[in-house]
Formats: sequence, C-alpha cells, structure tokens
Amino acid sequence: MSLSKDSRIGRSAILLVLSDDKSEELEKIKQLDWKCCTGKVGSMEAHKVVAAIETAAKKNEIVETGLYRESHALYHAIIESLHGVTRGQVQLGSMLRTVGLSFAIVRGTPYENKNEGEWIAVSLYGTIGAPVKGAEHETIGLGVNHI
Amino acid sequence: MSLSKDSRIGRSAILLVLSDDKSEELEKIKQLDWKCCTGKVGSMEAHKVVAAIETAAKKNEIVETGLYRESHALYHAIIESLHGVTRGQVQLGSMLRTVGLSFAIVRGTPYENKNEGEWIAVSLYGTIGAPVKGAEHETIGLGVNHI
Amino acid sequence: MSLSKDSRIGRSAILLVLSDDKSEELEKIKQLDWKCCTGKVGSMEAHKVVAAIETAAKKNEIVETGLYRESHALYHAIIESLHGVTRGQVQLGSMLRTVGLSFAIVRGTPYENKNEGEWIAVSLYGTIGAPVKGAEHETIGLGVNHI
Amino acid sequence: MSLSKDSRIGRSAILLVLSDDKSEELEKIKQLDWKCCTGKVGSMEAHKVVAAIETAAKKNEIVETGLYRESHALYHAIIESLHGVTRGQVQLGSMLRTVGLSFAIVRGTPYENKNEGEWIAVSLYGTIGAPVKGAEHETIGLGVNHI
Amino acid sequence: MSLSKDSRIGRSAILLVLSDDKSEELEKIKQLDWKCCTGKVGSMEAHKVVAAIETAAKKNEIVETGLYRESHALYHAIIESLHGVTRGQVQLGSMLRTVGLSFAIVRGTPYENKNEGEWIAVSLYGTIGAPVKGAEHETIGLGVNHI
Amino acid sequence: MSLSKDSRIGRSAILLVLSDDKSEELEKIKQLDWKCCTGKVGSMEAHKVVAAIETAAKKNEIVETGLYRESHALYHAIIESLHGVTRGQVQLGSMLRTVGLSFAIVRGTPYENKNEGEWIAVSLYGTIGAPVKGAEHETIGLGVNHI
Repeated sequence: MSLSKDSRIGRSAILLVLSDDKSEELEKIKQLDWKCCTGKVGSMEAHKVVAAIETAAKKNEIVETGLYRESHALYHAIIESLHGVTRGQVQLGSMLRTVGLSFAIVRGTPYENKNEGEWIAVSLYGTIGAPVKGAEHETIGLGVNHI
Repeated sequence: MSLSKDSRIGRSAILLVLSDDKSEELEKIKQLDWKCCTGKVGSMEAHKVVAAIETAAKKNEIVETGLYRESHALYHAIIESLHGVTRGQVQLGSMLRTVGLSFAIVRGTPYENKNEGEWIAVSLYGTIGAPVKGAEHETIGLGVNHI
Repeated sequence: MSLSKDSRIGRSAILLVLSDDKSEELEKIKQLDWKCCTGKVGSMEAHKVVAAIETAAKKNEIVETGLYRESHALYHAIIESLHGVTRGQVQLGSMLRTVGLSFAIVRGTPYENKNEGEWIAVSLYGTIGAPVKGAEHETIGLGVNHI
Repeated sequence: MSLSKDSRIGRSAILLVLSDDKSEELEKIKQLDWKCCTGKVGSMEAHKVVAAIETAAKKNEIVETGLYRESHALYHAIIESLHGVTRGQVQLGSMLRTVGLSFAIVRGTPYENKNEGEWIAVSLYGTIGAPVKGAEHETIGLGVNHI
Repeated sequence: MSLSKDSRIGRSAILLVLSDDKSEELEKIKQLDWKCCTGKVGSMEAHKVVAAIETAAKKNEIVETGLYRESHALYHAIIESLHGVTRGQVQLGSMLRTVGLSFAIVRGTPYENKNEGEWIAVSLYGTIGAPVKGAEHETIGLGVNHI
Repeated sequence: MSLSKDSRIGRSAILLVLSDDKSEELEKIKQLDWKCCTGKVGSMEAHKVVAAIETAAKKNEIVETGLYRESHALYHAIIESLHGVTRGQVQLGSMLRTVGLSFAIVRGTPYENKNEGEWIAVSLYGTIGAPVKGAEHETIGLGVNHI
C-alpha cells in the first residue's frame, strides 16, 4: 500500500513545474509510462486558471474528454492546488491580486499495490501579488487525487 | 523591484525540502549569503508542526529569539505553508488525519532592489492521510513573508 | 425546549425540496399552520441564488418585505445552506462551476416550548459541476435560523 | 453522461438518512444492485464522526478495507458532508457545539454512461447545538465523490 | 428602517470594551434602557472564550437562560466576533496561539423602526499571539445579530 | 517586548475610525510621532475596498510607493481587517451584500523594545448588509502587521 520512493507523483509534478530544463523529469515520467503535460497561465480570475489547466489536460489526453469521472478528479486536484497558491480564500482579482503561474499535470500509479490504480497530481508555481509589476512573491500548490 | 531569477527564495526553499542530497541547494544558499535550516516533523496536531518549525528557526538562528517582529513574520509564513498542506481547514487530528513532513526555512534577499530587504520562506513536503500506514498521499506548502 | 418530532422544520424543508409530488409535504405544513414556498434557480453566480430565494420569500410573504430583522434571519439561513452546496468556498463561477438548484423555504415553530417562537429553514437540492451538460453531481444544503 | 433520474445517488442517501421506515429506500437501492449502510453517531469531536462513518463503511463492505484509493474517496465525501453540517468551520467541541447525527452511505452507479463507474454518497442528518439538551437545531450534509 | 445615529449598538459595544473608564458608555446604555455586561477571558481554547461570554450573558440576564432562541442568537454573534479576532480559522491553541480578551455584550434596539426589535452585539478586544509573554499584537471582533 | 499601554496601535486605529471628532486621537498619534490617515469607501466589491485603502496609504505617505515590502505588509493588514468585516468569506457582492465603511491606517512603534520597530494597523468600521437602504448592521475589523 506504500508510496513507492521512485514514483512519488506529487514530487514529480513539483519538480516538473520548477525545472528550467524539464528533460530529466520528463524522461523519468516516460520511463514510468505515466502521462504528463505542462503549461502557463496568468490571470486575475481563478476560473481562468482552472480552465487553462482543464483545457491542457484534455488536449494532451491526460484525462478523457467527456468522461465526468475524470474531470471531477482533475477539478478537485486543481482546487486543492489553488488552496496552496491562495492560502485562505480561493480568490484573486476580487481580493485585488493576480497570479502568473506555471503548471504541471501528472497522471500515474504512485503506489506499489497495483490495485491502488491511477492518481493525478496538479502542481502550480509562480508569483502572486498586486496588479503592479514586481509587487509579488512566489507561491506554490499541489493537489493529488485518485482518478 | 523584480524578483531576481537567481535568488528565488520560495523555489530555493522547495528544492531544499525536496532534495535527497541537499548539498547543491545548500551551496547556492551559502553563495547568496542567506540563512537556512531543514528538519522533520510528524504529528496529528497542527500546533506541533508550528512548534517544530519555530524551534528549528530559533535554534539555527534564522530568526532572533525574543524579537516578536521576527517570530510574527515566521508564524504567518508557517500558517500560509500549512494552508497548502491542509487545503481548506488548517486541521489534522480533529479531522482524523495525520502528516509526516520535512520542512525547510530560508531567509534571504530575493529582490534586486536592496530596499526590499529580507524575506523568509517556509516550505513543507511530505504525506497527509489517515492514521494508518500507507493510507496517505503527498502534500506541499509554501509561505513567504517580509521579515 | 425540545424539537417536536412532528415538527422538524429542517427535515420538512428537505423533504419538500426533494419531493417530485409535493402535495403530502405541503399538506403537513398546512396542518401545522406554517408558511412555505418552493422555487428553482440555476446560475454561475452565488448572488443570483441568494436573490432568487429572497425574492420568492418576499413574494410569498414568508418574510415581511421592509423588515430588516426578517431579511437578516433569511439571509443567514440562505448562506448557511449554500455552505452545504459549495462545501468550502461559497463561490460558483469564480471557481468555474455552476449550479442547478431547487429550493424550499419553511417558516414555523419547531419547538414544543411556544416561547422558542418562529424559525426559518432554507433547503437547497440540485446539481453542481462544470459548465458542461452532465458534468455535475448532486448537492444539498440546509440553513436554519430563528426569526 | 447525464445523471439518471431513477438513480440519483445523493437523493437516495438523503432519503435513506431521513426515513423513519427505511425499507422502501433500501428496496430501491437493492433493485439497483447498489450497496449501502446506515448508522448513528453523536460527538463533540469531528474526528469521531469521521471514524464512525469510516468504520461502518468498512464493516459493511461499502469500501474495501486496506485499499487507500477507496478510503480516500470516502474520506473526502465525509468531509464534504461535514461542511454542510458545520457551515463554515469543520469544528464541533472546539467551538463549543455538539452533534447528534444519523448517517447513510450509498455506493452505486448514478450515471447512464457505464464508463462513469461507481460513485459514493455520504449523507448526514441530525442536530447541532450547545452541549445542553434541546439547545440545538437540525442540520444536514451531503458529500458525493467518484470511487 | 435606518440605524439611529445615537443608538449604534455595535459602536457602543466596541467603545465599552475599549474604555479604561466605562462609566460614560454605561451611562449612555442605561439612558437607552438597554442591557449590557463586560468581562475578561484568556485562553488557548476557543470554546472557553465562547463559554465565558455565554456564562456572563446568562448570569447578567442579557439573554434568558433556557430559551434556545436567545442562546442561538448570542452564539452566532460570538462566533462572528471570533472571526475578527482569529482572521481566517476560528482556532487558537491548535494553531499554537493564545488570546487575552476583554468582551462586552450589549442588547438593545438600534433601529428607528420599533418593529426591528431587539439585537445583540458582542465585542472582543485584546491580544493574540504565541504562548510567550509579549509575543502578541492587538485584535478585535464584533458580531451583531437579531434576537 | 511588551505592548506599551500608551501606544496600543490597534486601539488607536479603532478609536480613530469610530470618532466623530477625530482631533483628540489625531493629537495622541502626533505626540507619538506616528503616521496615520483616514477615509471612506462604499462598495459591493472587496477589491475596491482594498484599493481605496492602498491608495490612501500611498497618497498620505503611510507606506512608500514602489516598495513592495511595505505594500505587502499593508495588504495583509487590510485582508485581516476584512475578515472581521465579512466574518467567514471575504466576499461582498458575490454574496449579495454591500459595505459602507470608514477606515483608518496607523503606522507606529507599539512595543517598548525599539528593536520591534514599526507596525501598521488598519481598522474598518461601518455597515454591511443587503443592497437596500437600511437593511444593514454594523461591522468592524482590525488588521495588524509588522512593516
């Protein structure tokens, strides 16, 4: 039932989002036969962050378009990741702040027991702050869900 | 006023907490003439996580013992980091869940403009789940504050 | 001081909102000499859900228009009910989700002791999900307040 | 992809928890070849509510003991249901309030599309209030998750 | 329907809690024929703050003991006031912080329209911080409810 | 390390916002050689409240324009103050409510130990309620941060 040390899906998603050169992490994910994608989104509206990640996940076939079960798993992983980014209220522009984020989505099998099946991890890294250039600090988030 | 690419304090704190071999990150932090420390804490009580990080910060002279200003900055960075870990309610045992976490604290000057002064970053990485071995998934958090 | 078994106002409001044929519940409420109304609202904006319920309550004379005391009691019952529907953040479109809800409002005297006076219950039942047909699951909420 | 009208799992879980005579609802659930169980729990500690529901779910084989994937789905459904009950802070005794709750857990296939697979619904109904007999009002909650 | 300038109940409750010499505020409240009381409570447990205020309210006959309707109004005013004190999570010791608070409870008729009836205001003022002498800053809260 | 009785910055900010005649409080603040300003803002949008306070703070040179460190301290003090005003969700129009607020910002040195340096307090007082004249009650908030 344990998390396998070599297949920590959350750690993988964070290292992927943090890497300037993503080739090493991408290679590891490929070796594990997992799926992933990365992208960027900047917005004052939280729903645009959600939409950008959902679109990337569908376009890159990380989740199956039209299968609600998978969208539901992804949605909750995104919102959990946004909790780390926003730290209290999942709000951006309505609290006069904006984000510039990179994201990574990884889908794989982090547990040794094969019956644990597939899980999805959504990581976010970037800046949050006032809508003024430079008036911002770093922020991170991670959501993990069974899929 | 911008964040300097080579001195992203949040990224540094996360890479430090994620690294199996911490020497590379520690060397970078040393080169920047910043302070840092790392540690581990496992608990079903959030206040023990807060206490473990505060104790490490004081013992390693990241913050000045007896100066409330610095404790206050650290405290809010810890709580913000716990928001990422807990994703909604900053509660552990009272919601029947437990954490096993590594933490890193970095204090430094992430902005090009020297007047922006010192900031502190607290990163958390580990697992969260039921009080049953293996019934857990990964979690991360980051709090950044001016000090 | 006890809740009377035959006059559980919250249970009544939920059964009313869940019933396909509302005549049985309406008859019980009429027998108790209580007031009630039902309605529907679908929206990506939480304030439209609040407004639809407030309008129905005033139009059906469940609360007295122009008496803030009663609007205040109703408002908090609505927001508490929305907590059950949204489970964490009272936000819809700003988190890229939408609701299709039925609601019921019941005003009555649920306690045996007549001095406990009137109370109001607001129940919500329907679906919450992505703004895509079918990508949704059920949700419920109940708010109860003294009036 | 739609929710089938005759197999609304959340509605089923609520009606089950509200029924004085549960035989009709139990028969419907049996006809659908779904699994369910019910129980009661009263406590000032939220973690005891969580534990009581988890124990009932395992004992009645609604979820597979030792499979984290299933416990994880159940846990989030419970916590979402508790949001409806607590309406703001998932806290009981620490805010000087107590609950007396009935619960129902239903596991089944609410969507017409068979690929949507199994889902789990946790409903809670009872009273919340001061730790003084009678100083309480009704409360409800529902959590729905894919499993 | 307006708030009468001379009978702002919330302002009155705050000035009462802030005053070193309370005689002027007490005189105003007496002139209005309202009820009030004040007290102090220090604790790491939020439920003890709630209990201290409830006890004072009953002992000083601000609310009627044994009438749930009044306890319910008071309870929500207390919790709302604690939101101002805790600013995010209504938790003290579980987040390793403690409070030393003065409180005031005022019951009266703040609206010009007599039909608006009685309202209750609970104000809190004091310090919040680490369980270390001096490592604390000021905090305030106000809850207002119809009764 | 103690808060000095004559220089309680939060109390000062609240009395300033509550005073009809602000000259006495302004004189005390001047004597302490502290900085302060006051203003008013009414809105259904929380971000406009934040913006009004930030603008006043910069225009009156309470914080240094262009120094993120100071804006960051001010921002968190404002958001904490808004927690007291909104009591649960930092939302206004999206929950169909509006505010009419006075605010005060005070920057000074509340601790006896000079090393504790400068702190900033943001107080809010006014009304919150439905977007209907008179359908509102009083509300208050206070945020305190090191700067």
